[in-house]
Amino acid sequence: MKNLDSMCLRYRNGKLELLDQRMLPQKEDWVEISDYKQMITAIKTLAVRGAPAIGVAAGMALAQEAMKGANAQALAHMAQELYEARPTAVNLMWAMDKLALKVAHHELTREHVVEGAWRIFEEDVQLCLNMAKNGAALINDGDNILTHCNTGGLATVGVGTALGVIRHAHEQGKKIHVWVDETRPLLQGGRLTAWECHTLGIPYTIICDNMAGVLMREGRVQKIFVGSDRVARNGDFANKIGTYSVSVLARAHGVPFHPVAPYSTIDPVCPSGAHIPVEERDPQEVRGVKGGFGSVSWSPEGSNCFNPSFDVTPVENITSFVFDHGVFGPDQLRAGKHLRH
Amino acid sequence: MKNLDSMCLRYRNGKLELLDQRMLPQKEDWVEISDYKQMITAIKTLAVRGAPAIGVAAGMALAQEAMKGANAQALAHMAQELYEARPTAVNLMWAMDKLALKVAHHELTREHVVEGAWRIFEEDVQLCLNMAKNGAALINDGDNILTHCNTGGLATVGVGTALGVIRHAHEQGKKIHVWVDETRPLLQGGRLTAWECHTLGIPYTIICDNMAGVLMREGRVQKIFVGSDRVARNGDFANKIGTYSVSVLARAHGVPFHPVAPYSTIDPVCPSGAHIPVEERDPQEVRGVKGGFGSVSWSPEGSNCFNPSFDVTPVENITSFVFDHGVFGPDQLRAGKHLRH
Repeated sequence: MKNLDSMCLRYRNGKLELLDQRMLPQKEDWVEISDYKQMITAIKTLAVRGAPAIGVAAGMALAQEAMKGANAQALAHMAQELYEARPTAVNLMWAMDKLALKVAHHELTREHVVEGAWRIFEEDVQLCLNMAKNGAALINDGDNILTHCNTGGLATVGVGTALGVIRHAHEQGKKIHVWVDETRPLLQGGRLTAWECHTLGIPYTIICDNMAGVLMREGRVQKIFVGSDRVARNGDFANKIGTYSVSVLARAHGVPFHPVAPYSTIDPVCPSGAHIPVEERDPQEVRGVKGGFGSVSWSPEGSNCFNPSFDVTPVENITSFVFDHGVFGPDQLRAGKHLRH
Repeated sequence: MKNLDSMCLRYRNGKLELLDQRMLPQKEDWVEISDYKQMITAIKTLAVRGAPAIGVAAGMALAQEAMKGANAQALAHMAQELYEARPTAVNLMWAMDKLALKVAHHELTREHVVEGAWRIFEEDVQLCLNMAKNGAALINDGDNILTHCNTGGLATVGVGTALGVIRHAHEQGKKIHVWVDETRPLLQGGRLTAWECHTLGIPYTIICDNMAGVLMREGRVQKIFVGSDRVARNGDFANKIGTYSVSVLARAHGVPFHPVAPYSTIDPVCPSGAHIPVEERDPQEVRGVKGGFGSVSWSPEGSNCFNPSFDVTPVENITSFVFDHGVFGPDQLRAGKHLRH
């Protein structure tokens, strides 16, 4: 397979590697992945994360197995296991369907799986650029933009979804400032988005998630851009836990609220948000924090914790949804306009 | 002065001591306070915290100086310094006014300061009981109650404000469950409220602050009780950062929202929330966490952070305000009914 490069995933001279995001921003550790089981572990433990990035990463792991000689049946089995690594992000399912089902049905050869994987990689880069252009058109000079979780070069293999939009506006020379929700419990904002903004020279300020409301009330947030892990047919979407609260606060204060996703995040089989499965994770993530920076736990040992990884935002809280193939308001989403790519 | 005892502050055989809340729940360190400057440091660094508790603690520190022989002028000066330790909590101002101004005006002797301090202590215990009874009447069997920050025996010298209400309902035999907002950045929920609930045997589940919205949407929160650091004449009130967001989410989902405070938290001079000063604290509190459990920092070094300690909730978001002297709805608050004690 040809060499491929991104901020979080790369294939170089026969080696598949990913940047261990659990260690960022304290350590930049590239980890070699030599079989699909290792990729499943990397996806489950969030060494690689972000719906588009895990779709691409799973595709690369499957391509690697194809190059090692796995047959169609084995590839289909591996695809199923990869697909089950995280239940909410639909890009993973999409990439596995795209690559493995056709093989299983003898429509494609192993060589097609390899080519399919790098095409998914390169397509993601282009989808990011298209979203970035579509979304940046909504941003004005002087805007203070709030974002949640991480949706940049670490969540995709391109410039990102929501953070790609923000980056594009910044590179267009618009004077913007980003409010970065730290995004408990795993701190993808305070660690990863802060690190990306820092690296790119985009002015930013980290806030605790519970500070977004008062900033909106004081008129200090002009726009909100967030990513998505799955978009339903009616426009409801799942994203990192806390996104729903941000959407309610945005609506209450009249702040435009824009999710951003590639078409591969749309699940055309899913009728509405009520049908999106939401993963619950280890309560220990809520009792403390853990990462390249160390590990501490502050709550009484054994405390009950609630720890859903995602929540669902209903279509009525969306001002407009930015896709690579266009920008759609709630009425268009309800009518399924976003389904036509 | 006679011996006095509480969960967070005590006076025993001539020794004034406080439980260092920065170390909880990992360590129960009682620290001796031997002069008012140490108390100022304890208040500023949050070794003692919670609006009612710091009012009482400052009163005790002043009484200690009176017993050591400070004259009226010196006591007035110390009271001013203590009062400036934290700008938002009005109980501190109230206690200092009550004790020191009269001395400065030669209306009271040093002995009166000492007696005044223990009377404030004992009054707080009684005020908590009255709030607890008034608030618990609003709680039904089976309620899931969400609370923010810590408002129990660690925030007062009695059973608490909001958490005192919850405790009282629990002791009445009502089957309740508490959703504990962890309350970033200083984790008074995840550390202190969880510890108090654990100690008292009240069923609880810790959540990250950004999870409250989705719980409300799913109908899993029947009531919300929070504390207050200052109540304005029109019913607007300041409380721990994040309270405002909770109030907006509560309103959007039709969940009853009840702040709880003693009359000493009312600032009759303050016309509305816009006049309440809000303290901004060290950005390092947002870049990481620190306590008896250790200390870590995850954000890029030197990242800009926004760190207001409080926010203001407008009277229109209140279902009813629970005081020791009664329960008042928004119209009654606007009319100033809560001002008459």
